[in-house]
Amino acid sequence: MSILVAMPGYDPSRWVDALRRGAPERPVATQAARGDPSIRYAVAWKQPEGLLASFPNLSAVFSLGAGVDHILRDPTLPDVPVVRVVADDLTERMSEYVAWRVLDHFRRGMTYRRQQARAIWNERPQPVARDVTVGIMGLGVLGQDAARKLSALGFRIAGWSRTAKEVAGIATFAGDDGLGPFLAETDVLVVLLPATAETRGILSSALFARCKRRTPLGEAPVLVNAGRGSLQREADILRALDEGRLSEASLDVFEEEPLPASSALWRHPRVFVTPHAAAVSEPEALVPPMLRQMDAFERGEPLRHLVDREAGY
Amino acid sequence: MSILVAMPGYDPSRWVDALRRGAPERPVATQAARGDPSIRYAVAWKQPEGLLASFPNLSAVFSLGAGVDHILRDPTLPDVPVVRVVADDLTERMSEYVAWRVLDHFRRGMTYRRQQARAIWNERPQPVARDVTVGIMGLGVLGQDAARKLSALGFRIAGWSRTAKEVAGIATFAGDDGLGPFLAETDVLVVLLPATAETRGILSSALFARCKRRTPLGEAPVLVNAGRGSLQREADILRALDEGRLSEASLDVFEEEPLPASSALWRHPRVFVTPHAAAVSEPEALVPPMLRQMDAFERGEPLRHLVDREAGY
Repeated sequence: MSILVAMPGYDPSRWVDALRRGAPERPVATQAARGDPSIRYAVAWKQPEGLLASFPNLSAVFSLGAGVDHILRDPTLPDVPVVRVVADDLTERMSEYVAWRVLDHFRRGMTYRRQQARAIWNERPQPVARDVTVGIMGLGVLGQDAARKLSALGFRIAGWSRTAKEVAGIATFAGDDGLGPFLAETDVLVVLLPATAETRGILSSALFARCKRRTPLGEAPVLVNAGRGSLQREADILRALDEGRLSEASLDVFEEEPLPASSALWRHPRVFVTPHAAAVSEPEALVPPMLRQMDAFERGEPLRHLVDREAGY
Repeated sequence: MSILVAMPGYDPSRWVDALRRGAPERPVATQAARGDPSIRYAVAWKQPEGLLASFPNLSAVFSLGAGVDHILRDPTLPDVPVVRVVADDLTERMSEYVAWRVLDHFRRGMTYRRQQARAIWNERPQPVARDVTVGIMGLGVLGQDAARKLSALGFRIAGWSRTAKEVAGIATFAGDDGLGPFLAETDVLVVLLPATAETRGILSSALFARCKRRTPLGEAPVLVNAGRGSLQREADILRALDEGRLSEASLDVFEEEPLPASSALWRHPRVFVTPHAAAVSEPEALVPPMLRQMDAFERGEPLRHLVDREAGY
């Protein structure tokens, strides 16, 4: 009963090594014939359509990253549990990225770097964190951890999610009705939503039009998207920046990745681009919780962090 | 019995306004004849030498910023209590700056900005915060608050101070003997020391030679100085950057301020310069605690946050 690592186009060697080190008794394959009855688990990233459906003894599919849209988009995906990766390592990396980007915008990093390039000594007005609200869209494991860490830095936090959630210390809003009131509070908009049919293109002109016009930083809100590229309409983000509906943006994910060299986002003076690097999936950190889940599953315990295939995450 | 605001060369109006709003019954002056018997308190920033000694009824001197070296350098300073400003606002701003700069270096902001300028999509290896030690020199109110907030972000913390201190959750080191072991732990060196005769020029080639050669980020340590410009030898910092003894630096304070346009620090690709803006002294935030101290003092209670004039801070 083998584990298949299915990540065509990517080098699987570190994942295979980590699986073999963590569970020497479990055979690990990177190739399998369609229909191979020995495949029990798939560890997948953008698996080929139809592949997983062919394995008669497949028991569960594990995602290699926080998102699962790349697995669910296979219309032939068999009806087995799909497991999201939840690991302290991944969560901590994402919160580091979010805190970093919020602080850099809030403390006017872009302005001071422009000043430095011209040797200009000019202190800018600076509110304190407790006068600034970070609004987080997406209150799963990642959103809640980011909220806690931003709170510890002194920021006020508002949270928005598809379905109502209560999170200690945070003003929460939910659904379509909650979006307007949530945006009315938000000075820095942090997006950690999953990619679903419902969230596709949510970061659009229509949403930016409902944002604050003026924050305590004296300008329009800042956008930080570390969720998924499909959430954003990049033409709308560029327009919002140029029309003053957004003041600055940090984007780690894009409609097309790698971001094409021709994209105006690379060159916009108020956009910071990272190459989908907010929370890298490190095999050494993510494989041990996967193996613990397989062990528990085989002892008859339920799998945790299961994907709700109807909701899409 | 008046309050004198003595900050020659700076506009005192916001300080005067805040004092008058907070204590309408207290006369506030910005000019006083030498020897004026009505002056009871001085609120000072770089007061003229000899001025404070002339007031026969002066009871206390309040600093307008976290540092007090600008007050103590007056050799004629009368033997009255000198009060350091301690305000949540100032502390929070400083910790924001420290967290911002540590995260920006740790998450490779300089590298990603260089890549962005050339439209390069290239993810860099990235350790997690729990594998990186931030070493904080100076464990006063500011250093301890920064330590708490960096801990909450996941970093390991080491602390160094002149005299031994115990701080929960931090490995602490003290004095000359403790400096080597402290530097041997430190990946990101954050400096929040006061300016004293003892700390002058401490950030020198001699200290950088004792730093780690290689941190989990794969390079020499990072320097963040938000203390005082007199702590640093800028020629040594530039040499350490170019010889690979330091990888990057964020400097908010300088030997000469404003930093002269001719300084190579402005143009160094691995130095980030801010104009002494880490923790701006906002009159609206700092005046209320000063007035509370005056009220308490007049009720016969001891003044708090007194400067130890022998230690120089």
